[in-house]
Amino acid sequence: EVSSVDYKTSHTVHLFPGLVNISAFVPGLLSPSDKDLEDVTKASLSGGFTTALLLPYGTLFQITDAASLDIAKASATGSAYCNYTFSAAVSATNAQSLDDEVQAELKSLFIPFRDLFAERSLSQQVAAVASHFASWSTDKPIITDARGSDLASVLLLASLNSRPVHVTDVRSKEDLLLISLSKAKQLRVTCDVSVYTLFYTSEAFGGVRCLPSKEHQEKLWEHLDVIDAFSIGTMPYELASELSKPTSASIGIEDALPLLLTAVSDGKLTLSAIQERLHDNPIRIFGLPDQSYTQVEVVVNRRAIIAGRKSSFWSPVDKLKISGSVNRVIVHGQTVFLDGTLLSAPVGRDISSATISRPAAALDRRGSMS
Amino acid sequence: EVSSVDYKTSHTVHLFPGLVNISAFVPGLLSPSDKDLEDVTKASLSGGFTTALLLPYGTLFQITDAASLDIAKASATGSAYCNYTFSAAVSATNAQSLDDEVQAELKSLFIPFRDLFAERSLSQQVAAVASHFASWSTDKPIITDARGSDLASVLLLASLNSRPVHVTDVRSKEDLLLISLSKAKQLRVTCDVSVYTLFYTSEAFGGVRCLPSKEHQEKLWEHLDVIDAFSIGTMPYELASELSKPTSASIGIEDALPLLLTAVSDGKLTLSAIQERLHDNPIRIFGLPDQSYTQVEVVVNRRAIIAGRKSSFWSPVDKLKISGSVNRVIVHGQTVFLDGTLLSAPVGRDISSATISRPAAALDRRGSMS
Ligand SMILES: [Zn+2]
Ligand SMILES: [Zn+2]
Ligand SMILES: [Zn+2]
Ligand SMILES: [Zn+2]
Ligand SMILES: [Zn+2]
Ligand SMILES: [Zn+2]
Ligand SMILES: [Zn+2]
Ligand SMILES: [Zn+2]
Repeated sequence: EVSSVDYKTSHTVHLFPGLVNISAFVPGLLSPSDKDLEDVTKASLSGGFTTALLLPYGTLFQITDAASLDIAKASATGSAYCNYTFSAAVSATNAQSLDDEVQAELKSLFIPFRDLFAERSLSQQVAAVASHFASWSTDKPIITDARGSDLASVLLLASLNSRPVHVTDVRSKEDLLLISLSKAKQLRVTCDVSVYTLFYTSEAFGGVRCLPSKEHQEKLWEHLDVIDAFSIGTMPYELASELSKPTSASIGIEDALPLLLTAVSDGKLTLSAIQERLHDNPIRIFGLPDQSYTQVEVVVNRRAIIAGRKSSFWSPVDKLKISGSVNRVIVHGQTVFLDGTLLSAPVGRDISSATISRPAAALDRRGSMS
Repeated sequence: EVSSVDYKTSHTVHLFPGLVNISAFVPGLLSPSDKDLEDVTKASLSGGFTTALLLPYGTLFQITDAASLDIAKASATGSAYCNYTFSAAVSATNAQSLDDEVQAELKSLFIPFRDLFAERSLSQQVAAVASHFASWSTDKPIITDARGSDLASVLLLASLNSRPVHVTDVRSKEDLLLISLSKAKQLRVTCDVSVYTLFYTSEAFGGVRCLPSKEHQEKLWEHLDVIDAFSIGTMPYELASELSKPTSASIGIEDALPLLLTAVSDGKLTLSAIQERLHDNPIRIFGLPDQSYTQVEVVVNRRAIIAGRKSSFWSPVDKLKISGSVNRVIVHGQTVFLDGTLLSAPVGRDISSATISRPAAALDRRGSMS
């Protein structure tokens, strides 16, 4: 850990390893002329994320077989500014089409609930999901955004099949409790919470549906030890949509570190808690290769550093209250981002197949909620 | 096994041990002047059931604490025609009030979904249900009527707490599949299906909601090995209600054996399959005392034996198509029912506390669905 304190302005420069954007939302990925992947990977790199795991949220962008994977790979080639991975989405009928060869080219299997199964509950899809659990490669992660009793269903199937499962974008205290109970009973479950979920409440935005209530948000903070990772996901997009603000696939990505670093200034979070949840745990949970000579230089305790930057899309962040920012991003010894300017070419690579297995013991023994 | 074949009419007399009505619906139990328990236990004994497990279905009759248990016990004393047991219903707030002393006087814990949690899903109640799993006596069964993803939630909590759970009144192929998958993975789960569910379809009654579709019913028959017990439950009551027919708490009880014995005549079921699901498995799953010198004499392959009997309530049974019936019921050496006439006084006893532990291995190794 390398850090130095600038005594004159009492701010701290801190170095993180290359961070992971574990659930990037790229709705236009399957449209050849779309710029979503370019935008999302640019914003990721500028936000300190040197790797982006693309998750097939929604119905526009869904890799469900070899053909859609090929389209995604072709359209991604040469347009990504950071490394990236692909995930396949479970459908009721595609357990067979995700054969060994297709699996080898994918990072993870995503079991989507918020869209695909919106009309039909998992219980009606239990046979389909069970067959995926039985056939999906054991060294590649399974991720879900299930909530409530759908979450219980996925955890049960994971338990029945002795498979680890990662729950992305937890938003309620009940879901976190279920995950906590499962961890306490040695189920191999991990989870993440979106950064916006931790910093914005429904009450603060006229009762929007996507954000948690203040009470739920407090419980999430209280049980931060159960939360393995921070994510961005679809929450910023959903919030902007609910508020009828202009949106973009890359919305919220560059807000993540400034918000988290401000919480460090406020004494709510430590720098190592951030590194655990944006680097250490993500690379272990998802078996990602570590990047050599890759660093993210951030500043804590310096106000308004990003106040002057302009953004093409709406953000809930009150820049005057922000006291942390990303100064510089170095990938493989090269400065790719400095003082608000991206210096890189689109040299990001598809690292879906690069699975590194690490001991999971430390992840499995996390404390339960009390 | 004692059986004799009457060659002249080619019917068979067969003896069962005293059978168990594992989920008796007694809505008026907590009303002192109500005759539901009398009716239900009379019908049970006449139907070959020498024990009735009263389940707290619905919101009228719910034992949730010591006070309601006392009322139920007082109103039951001297009015039951067969042995009976009480179960407590889980509520969001009663984990504490079901203390050791109250538990000692109860047979089982019932986690109701179809009424209590109709508005709130289990996921919102997960803390409450989890605390019940943690505090309920390990030698007393936990029963639920949860379906769909609520069922998955209960199975997950049972698995996390290493507790057996019995699922009553399974109605869909998806729920049976989830139970089958759980059994295959050594979860200690057992289940029952209502007799009406096996013999009547939604299509045959103008699309009623309570009955399964023909397709679902066929799957239940196909996977009879996954079904540990047969029950009566609330299905007959629900069917009559949906069809706006006169109902009674005892509706359907006396139809059970005639329907099952007719399936024996038709070659769809064996007599030993019936005994397993109405006696052997129930006494093992629920730890019930066996009754000495207690027998149920039935006749198979004789048509229209019950066609002449009158009933005060509606039944879907076409008596002309029935080819089996209960001839005689003997309890402790005394004939209590003969040729349609009940000869017994209300001498049934509360056997809630009489828990007999038997090896559960045979129950846990049941085959999975294929
Ligand atoms: Zn430092
Ligand atoms: Zn192939
Ligand atoms: Zn690293
Ligand atoms: Zn707590
Ligand atoms: Zn016999
Ligand atoms: Zn007490
Ligand atoms: Zn017996
Ligand atoms: Zn089958």
